[in-house]
Amino acid sequence: MDLGIAGRHAVLMASSRGLGRACAESLAREGVNIVVNGRNSDDVERAVAELREQHHVEVVGVVGDSSTTEVHDALLDWCPNPDIVLLNGEGPAPAPFANLDEDSLTAAFRQAVIGPVQFLQRVVPGMVERRFGRIVAVSSAMVKTPNPLMSLSHGTRLGLAGILKGLSRDVVAHNVTVNQLLPERFDTGRQQQMAELVMKFKGVSYEEARAEQVASIKAGRLGRPEEFGDAFAYLCSAQAGYLSGQNLQLDGGSYEGVF
Amino acid sequence: MDLGIAGRHAVLMASSRGLGRACAESLAREGVNIVVNGRNSDDVERAVAELREQHHVEVVGVVGDSSTTEVHDALLDWCPNPDIVLLNGEGPAPAPFANLDEDSLTAAFRQAVIGPVQFLQRVVPGMVERRFGRIVAVSSAMVKTPNPLMSLSHGTRLGLAGILKGLSRDVVAHNVTVNQLLPERFDTGRQQQMAELVMKFKGVSYEEARAEQVASIKAGRLGRPEEFGDAFAYLCSAQAGYLSGQNLQLDGGSYEGVF
Amino acid sequence: MDLGIAGRHAVLMASSRGLGRACAESLAREGVNIVVNGRNSDDVERAVAELREQHHVEVVGVVGDSSTTEVHDALLDWCPNPDIVLLNGEGPAPAPFANLDEDSLTAAFRQAVIGPVQFLQRVVPGMVERRFGRIVAVSSAMVKTPNPLMSLSHGTRLGLAGILKGLSRDVVAHNVTVNQLLPERFDTGRQQQMAELVMKFKGVSYEEARAEQVASIKAGRLGRPEEFGDAFAYLCSAQAGYLSGQNLQLDGGSYEGVF
Amino acid sequence: MDLGIAGRHAVLMASSRGLGRACAESLAREGVNIVVNGRNSDDVERAVAELREQHHVEVVGVVGDSSTTEVHDALLDWCPNPDIVLLNGEGPAPAPFANLDEDSLTAAFRQAVIGPVQFLQRVVPGMVERRFGRIVAVSSAMVKTPNPLMSLSHGTRLGLAGILKGLSRDVVAHNVTVNQLLPERFDTGRQQQMAELVMKFKGVSYEEARAEQVASIKAGRLGRPEEFGDAFAYLCSAQAGYLSGQNLQLDGGSYEGVF
Repeated sequence: MDLGIAGRHAVLMASSRGLGRACAESLAREGVNIVVNGRNSDDVERAVAELREQHHVEVVGVVGDSSTTEVHDALLDWCPNPDIVLLNGEGPAPAPFANLDEDSLTAAFRQAVIGPVQFLQRVVPGMVERRFGRIVAVSSAMVKTPNPLMSLSHGTRLGLAGILKGLSRDVVAHNVTVNQLLPERFDTGRQQQMAELVMKFKGVSYEEARAEQVASIKAGRLGRPEEFGDAFAYLCSAQAGYLSGQNLQLDGGSYEGVF
Repeated sequence: MDLGIAGRHAVLMASSRGLGRACAESLAREGVNIVVNGRNSDDVERAVAELREQHHVEVVGVVGDSSTTEVHDALLDWCPNPDIVLLNGEGPAPAPFANLDEDSLTAAFRQAVIGPVQFLQRVVPGMVERRFGRIVAVSSAMVKTPNPLMSLSHGTRLGLAGILKGLSRDVVAHNVTVNQLLPERFDTGRQQQMAELVMKFKGVSYEEARAEQVASIKAGRLGRPEEFGDAFAYLCSAQAGYLSGQNLQLDGGSYEGVF
Repeated sequence: MDLGIAGRHAVLMASSRGLGRACAESLAREGVNIVVNGRNSDDVERAVAELREQHHVEVVGVVGDSSTTEVHDALLDWCPNPDIVLLNGEGPAPAPFANLDEDSLTAAFRQAVIGPVQFLQRVVPGMVERRFGRIVAVSSAMVKTPNPLMSLSHGTRLGLAGILKGLSRDVVAHNVTVNQLLPERFDTGRQQQMAELVMKFKGVSYEEARAEQVASIKAGRLGRPEEFGDAFAYLCSAQAGYLSGQNLQLDGGSYEGVF
Repeated sequence: MDLGIAGRHAVLMASSRGLGRACAESLAREGVNIVVNGRNSDDVERAVAELREQHHVEVVGVVGDSSTTEVHDALLDWCPNPDIVLLNGEGPAPAPFANLDEDSLTAAFRQAVIGPVQFLQRVVPGMVERRFGRIVAVSSAMVKTPNPLMSLSHGTRLGLAGILKGLSRDVVAHNVTVNQLLPERFDTGRQQQMAELVMKFKGVSYEEARAEQVASIKAGRLGRPEEFGDAFAYLCSAQAGYLSGQNLQLDGGSYEGVF
């Protein structure tokens, strides 16, 4: 399927590893030029080198926290007119309700909401003018089914879900779409870290911890990052211009609700 | 993007025209062998001929109402082991609440629920055994936002939405996915008919009736059938195996709800 | 809290036992005259006698299946102009997807959708004219989270949910409200039957079977019928006229979704 | 209907006027002792005086912004062990996406999320220990259907919706419920202000501006504050202990979605 985006330019936040990296692979394969971003310079360099080697597109890297103005400046220096934007970032640590404090809530809100909003304010007008834009945010399955331990995540990401819904209605007439992907348990470093946490807390083996993760997913397996990347690529396609304001769950069929 | 389904076999109900036909085009382009279906034999013959001419896949046609056992028999004669199924059919006529009667409700339920359930009962076990299945139902945007005039549609299609959600949870572990597409106002013969109805009732011109349709869509245009077909093709892809139980709205960003 | 409905007339389907009976108690306590209904004449007689004894309101009983025209006739003979209607009925038996057949699906649809629609067609015009109506349907928690074994329930009740939503939008301007209550695991005869089924299938004691039911509810207990009855009474109150088209879950806080 | 809460103690934020004041009236009528709160001392004094005069309950007032620690201290000085809490506060001003800035987003998040979380952290443990608690947040209809101009509202209130959902699941087993009321267009000072804004911007009369408001509501009228107060009172009742984690829309039946 020709996605009709060869030659387009994409800014992909937090894309040096994990799900973001898979998104970069899928877009580069389709001929999209990429700005990779990540907090760790080795990861970013490796991602840039590998993407350049495997695909015939321009790839550059920006190191830093994608919720900051400095990183926004650097991303836009390399790519002043992005056609495609991936909003992504490291999720907050677990915290029970009783331990939520002003600092961690404020930091999570800055990461999940303020940073993305500020970046979009700089790029959406150009997308509207050029009549092409594909904005996709990596959210979490928990925005539909909040886990009491993850308030820092859903307590802020839900706000972004609302803001993006509102934004989507204002810009879809200009062929700018805004959607969210809601992943649950993909086989990335994050799930490995979580398995290690479970090993410590429950005194189980790594295999047992991983088996627990798999058992929580109706598909009977974790998601593969390339499945996520291709879902992202489809949402970025030229032919997805009539699809906007959606929250697509990539969760191995685990969500219990009808809608 | 390689969808990984070349050589697969698909049974596509109500696919000789409109959205179903667009689904056939998108799959045939990806190398999927197709059984086309429709109520009108001319339409079916034309679809078969055109698909054969343009794509190097096997295409056969079955004429008849896809909710009947006879047509199910014929579809499965041609394709005993479908990998992909499109559940689709003509929508019921508008009817205000006061005019709903037992016959029209029962007929709509048979069309929207009983027929699809009976067909799936015959093909899902094979999909589970072969560990590949992609089931997609064409529903309606109205299942999330019921229009009082369309009770025959949402009053039955919602039931199918629930049944398919339940089914999806039972089969996703076998790489069989079940999803729904919720279209609103695609540029097909149905919207032309609706425009003609509006011309009569409101005494307006065809251009005015079409402008009204466009005005109801946030994207400022009707959907293009090929956009629908490609959304369907993506859901049928090998790499969409972690995506199940979803209701994807293709509505030009018109739905007002967050979820 | 004065609910402002003393002297009103209510038709309560399937109200001789269980949740329906609790609804009758709550309304009778508020001074509403009641038509009780149930399939078993002993149950109906007992309910009528007890309600008359405890409350100073008119109570009559109609024996029979509330989805039939004969029973509709009898209910309206006793109460030609109901102000309040409870749509309720026995839920269908569990059945896996593979066992759904045309007869059971059709019967469930008649019970869950056609019967209620036909009764409402007879009483809504009067409510609109008199500018007061409170319609409440007892649905099920499963309409939001379908259980694969209960397709006969959610596969039809979801249709009613959609039809009632559409209807609610047409009549709310006339002070006629339409809402649904979505119960999960109330301490009625139905949960006792289910416990007995579990005893047989799993070879456990009654106490163990009941403990399993409790464990499935976040509140750590089953619901009490009088809690259901009072939720119903509130929805029927004069001051609930601005609340319509809602699906209120009474599930001990068990639903996982935000919305 | 006896709500079973006479003698209980309630802390009601932002309750000197409008919807909060109506909540105070409904609870005082049921015999609940009240701490009133508001930013304007005249309003608070008047509310205290009027509530004391009309109801035989203890009423005290605390002046100040209910999202601050100082006001939390004062509220808990008067009422160290509240059984009932109303989370309420002035909504943020409209702002288009392009004008959202860090300061206004941060302030809205503090008001809508951090303040409420900090207050609940101080009172929920006592509710759990005493095995009675009724927490109700006044949210907005827009959390389900975001208006692009109101990102400061839904972009933060949605976060609270998620956090409260998570919390609700942890505490319902202790007879502590957490619910939200989602009002749309009640006849309070806020709608009068909004009508005045519309007069200025559109150059219409006050009557025309009010007619526009009414036209946006399916019920054909604005909500009455006492309807809101009584919905709140019902959610606070002893018999509503099985009802938790819900978002109840009080919108004159205007919401278009099934769920």
